[in-house]
Amino acid sequence: MALTLALVQQAFIDDRHTTLERTGQHIRAAAAQGAELVCLQELHAGPYFCQHQSAELFDLAEPLDGPTAQFLGQLAAELNLVIVGSIFERRAKGLYHNTALVFDRSTELAGFYRKMHIPDDPGFYEKYYFTPGDADQPGFEPIETSVGKLGVLVCWDQWYPEAARLMALADADVLIYPTAIGWEPPEDDAEKQRQRDAWMLVQRGHAVANNLPVIAINRVGHEVDPSGVTDGIDFWGNSFVCGPQGELLLHAEHQQETVLMTEIDLQRCEQVRRIWPYLRDRRVDAYQDVTRRFRD
Amino acid sequence: MALTLALVQQAFIDDRHTTLERTGQHIRAAAAQGAELVCLQELHAGPYFCQHQSAELFDLAEPLDGPTAQFLGQLAAELNLVIVGSIFERRAKGLYHNTALVFDRSTELAGFYRKMHIPDDPGFYEKYYFTPGDADQPGFEPIETSVGKLGVLVCWDQWYPEAARLMALADADVLIYPTAIGWEPPEDDAEKQRQRDAWMLVQRGHAVANNLPVIAINRVGHEVDPSGVTDGIDFWGNSFVCGPQGELLLHAEHQQETVLMTEIDLQRCEQVRRIWPYLRDRRVDAYQDVTRRFRD
Repeated sequence: MALTLALVQQAFIDDRHTTLERTGQHIRAAAAQGAELVCLQELHAGPYFCQHQSAELFDLAEPLDGPTAQFLGQLAAELNLVIVGSIFERRAKGLYHNTALVFDRSTELAGFYRKMHIPDDPGFYEKYYFTPGDADQPGFEPIETSVGKLGVLVCWDQWYPEAARLMALADADVLIYPTAIGWEPPEDDAEKQRQRDAWMLVQRGHAVANNLPVIAINRVGHEVDPSGVTDGIDFWGNSFVCGPQGELLLHAEHQQETVLMTEIDLQRCEQVRRIWPYLRDRRVDAYQDVTRRFRD
Repeated sequence: MALTLALVQQAFIDDRHTTLERTGQHIRAAAAQGAELVCLQELHAGPYFCQHQSAELFDLAEPLDGPTAQFLGQLAAELNLVIVGSIFERRAKGLYHNTALVFDRSTELAGFYRKMHIPDDPGFYEKYYFTPGDADQPGFEPIETSVGKLGVLVCWDQWYPEAARLMALADADVLIYPTAIGWEPPEDDAEKQRQRDAWMLVQRGHAVANNLPVIAINRVGHEVDPSGVTDGIDFWGNSFVCGPQGELLLHAEHQQETVLMTEIDLQRCEQVRRIWPYLRDRRVDAYQDVTRRFRD
């Protein structure tokens, strides 16, 4: 039973309204081609604003039922499909998250996920803006939908095998990573290649280790650093889908805006798990130190 | 500070004596070319005997100071290098393990590791022969040597991100996987390719997730199934070394017996960890369910 999915790999243009309008066109085009699940990139409605720290930028945040959520919910209901989106969430006065949203053929939110691992390095000042998600609200919990249990994680989470494993142990059918990752333009080409390859390798590794398909949707385009300190970020695209043995099913080997479509077979997971039954042999008696910062 | 290492990718020939003699020639050749660390494949002194179940085969087992250990220790002392070997260990009457051994320029054992995750599927009846390693004797503990802290794991362990992580958290400098993995000859080519790629992907993924180099040494050659039930196993070679971004430094894209040599830079780990500081952001407050069989 194949699931038809679409990945919208997009650049930010001008403002939220214009960008979402374009996103809507992409989603409609995907729906017309039979998409049942549409995945959008991290913080798709706005610029990647974390390149510098500015208190004013918290104005970009919106609640779980804010304008971006309403826009996505209406499309999910109208087009009768599942949409994975992403917002800068204002949870309360002074409490903000980087949050993925899922709508399942309805204007009502099917579920959300608040990014658990928050990066912070020059040009990516996310610890300033985003409170890490709570361990259990919702934490590493797949979101039930009509197309399966979606293990939605966000960007920096993709480097953590623990996050993928916890989603798999909670019976996720697929791992989905909305992402905004790119190069600093001055970086040399060999290092750029290693970074991009590492990003793909680690996620394909999660697919293998958990026998689950993985969907990664990344932003494209150059975005300037408003502070002028750096040369900005070239978001590297390269969105991809792999199957439960890590095999590439789809890969945008470029940085152009595009809608990518493919099919995945959520039944294949169990077939692969019968050949390579990793879950059977996990040494759950010997993993307790995974909860330690370091074993010193 | 580069570390020169050698991987001996070998086929079993005739008997233990003949095979170890050949191994000795390979190690001497590697030493002559400056190897400081030599890695051998899983159960390198014998056939891969787990293709069928036979109580007589427990006669192949030897203690931690048995003939294979003595052979390796003498070479490590004579040639002044570190050797990672692998034996079918007889720990006590009726208690056997699949055990990696490390000798550090001495006949004395520097450390050992008893395979923690034990596979079992047609042609690979390891649960019959091998008791899983104890959680803490030695468990997931790197072995201190003059060339660094070696995170030695064995074959089936390579599919488990938990094992790699626990070694990294115990300050391993490198992950090393002696392996005996192959295809059943009747399998179709596309599936063979997916299996081999998955095997490489998941280990390169551990490199990325932990910012550590990974060394995988696999057996070559066809070994018949003495029970005649299957067509035997084609061990797929493809031994490789990757750096802390998962980048391939060495790869034997074939199934021939060979000694592969390369250099790795154990200092690069810390440079990479400064760019991508995953250890900083692990959600140790939210990982406790990793110790559960399933989150149901």
